[in-house]
Amino acid sequence: MVKTRLVLVGTEGEINLGMIARLAENFDVDELYLVNPQADIEAAKEYAVHAFHRLDDARIVDTLEESLENTSVSICTTAVKAESGDLLRVTTPLSQLPPLLEKISGRIAIVSGRESVGLTRDELSKCDLRATIETSDRYRTMNLACSVAVTLYTIYNTLKRVDVSKPSIRTGNQKRRLALNYASRIAENIFRDEQRRTNTILLFKKILTPGFLEDPEASLLLTFLSRIHSRLKRG
Amino acid sequence: MVKTRLVLVGTEGEINLGMIARLAENFDVDELYLVNPQADIEAAKEYAVHAFHRLDDARIVDTLEESLENTSVSICTTAVKAESGDLLRVTTPLSQLPPLLEKISGRIAIVSGRESVGLTRDELSKCDLRATIETSDRYRTMNLACSVAVTLYTIYNTLKRVDVSKPSIRTGNQKRRLALNYASRIAENIFRDEQRRTNTILLFKKILTPGFLEDPEASLLLTFLSRIHSRLKRG
Repeated sequence: MVKTRLVLVGTEGEINLGMIARLAENFDVDELYLVNPQADIEAAKEYAVHAFHRLDDARIVDTLEESLENTSVSICTTAVKAESGDLLRVTTPLSQLPPLLEKISGRIAIVSGRESVGLTRDELSKCDLRATIETSDRYRTMNLACSVAVTLYTIYNTLKRVDVSKPSIRTGNQKRRLALNYASRIAENIFRDEQRRTNTILLFKKILTPGFLEDPEASLLLTFLSRIHSRLKRG
Repeated sequence: MVKTRLVLVGTEGEINLGMIARLAENFDVDELYLVNPQADIEAAKEYAVHAFHRLDDARIVDTLEESLENTSVSICTTAVKAESGDLLRVTTPLSQLPPLLEKISGRIAIVSGRESVGLTRDELSKCDLRATIETSDRYRTMNLACSVAVTLYTIYNTLKRVDVSKPSIRTGNQKRRLALNYASRIAENIFRDEQRRTNTILLFKKILTPGFLEDPEASLLLTFLSRIHSRLKRG
């Protein structure tokens, strides 16, 4: 049984916060985390209608890290996307998440940023997957509550479809961490450019998204990277 | 080329009306019709951000019939659904619309009702399709703007998929072949075991599945592998 944790970082507006509390109820979100909220929570309840208790039950924390504790994968949404260069801005279209989600178990964190400036680069880099809602290129930025609605709808319906029998094929966290570590050390060895090194970590974070690789595939990737690493060190 | 007309019947709230104007821009709605709006349109502009002109351009009519003129199909959303009996309350889940939409041409009307009481039975019966957004059964009624967001997102992305033959989000074949080739030669270098070498190719075939990596990610992987390959050859 997959659980969902909605993480709102620095939400500024009471209307949005209230509407999102209601969405948490509409789409059976298991846990609501508020990272350093700016909006007045009592005032937000007015916009939450019958879901106001969601705001009483929300866990308030100071940092994104705390809000990601005990989650198996974190997915953030961002309106800014780039076609090349900075991998932090190269995002996965939301409509392509379902096949990935179908294989995930544990607790999924769904992260949304501030109305004014979204998530910082540092926050973006802490998430496993960066997703973008497909919109018109003419006007990409959506209202926060509306973008959370679309994201939760997509995730809720995917998880509901696959709910029952979940295969135990997930990339173990330990294996994932080790593989990322080797990828990072190889990048330091072969790339001088700092941006490329950072991008390599982001690339392998995506490849190692829980659920994408089957366990034996992740093991092979780990061996592949560790062999390369020791050969480069020797050479 | 399919066109979309968003029809809002008796919208009561300025916040919702403004947010929906913005959604019309986010999802390239061609025409906005307001049937007997109750909200103050000037006040709504504040919530439309850069899409306020959508409210100036909206066509205001008195009846649902007028708003459906010259459309080829009309789809309304309703939170009330019944499993049997009253056919007016037997609805199509929103996630099942895409296969239907793919066959439609002309102009699609997307109809949303009042915040307080939705659409009347008479209005419901004038629409060709009644759709329901799949939500938790515990709390089905969504905020109006949020439900329009989910509906427009679903329709926009279905139409776009059909429209443009194929998005540019696929790993170019040339790049894919090159990356596979490097992975294979690295595997020959670091693995003695034939099975492992074959498995490595399979692993990278999966990682390079068209559609999984965005183009800049695939480029970086190609560079990563080619650098490793030349370093190992030298070493």
